[in-house]
Amino acid sequence: MTNTTLNVEGMSCGHCVSSVEGSVGELNGVEAVKVHLDDAKVDVTFDSEKVDLQVIKETIEEQGYDVV
Amino acid sequence: MTNTTLNVEGMSCGHCVSSVEGSVGELNGVEAVKVHLDDAKVDVTFDSEKVDLQVIKETIEEQGYDVV
Repeated sequence: MTNTTLNVEGMSCGHCVSSVEGSVGELNGVEAVKVHLDDAKVDVTFDSEKVDLQVIKETIEEQGYDVV
Repeated sequence: MTNTTLNVEGMSCGHCVSSVEGSVGELNGVEAVKVHLDDAKVDVTFDSEKVDLQVIKETIEEQGYDVV
């Protein structure tokens, strides 16, 4: 299992938390995802054999946020 | 038809706009609702014989925002 912390811009409220955690959490291979709104960070625990980090980043971008 | 502008705190993103416009817009007697995110204002056009302004305010509060 791989743990990573992404810097994500544009998350401003509880709805943003839900949309990021919901979309990333649905990906096959993602074990855990936690948004830290005040720090503009997203912690993700995933199985790198099942899901690529790039796919996780793209999923966040698709919700309208910038992974920096 | 009555036009009013409410000052609303806590709306920070497009999801917030959707939740306020969606919930207020569903009220019977509300003809139009428009959120101005940058100004923290909500314009509402409604029939005061069908819906009370207090109900509109409470609907916004129920979504998690403060009408000030």
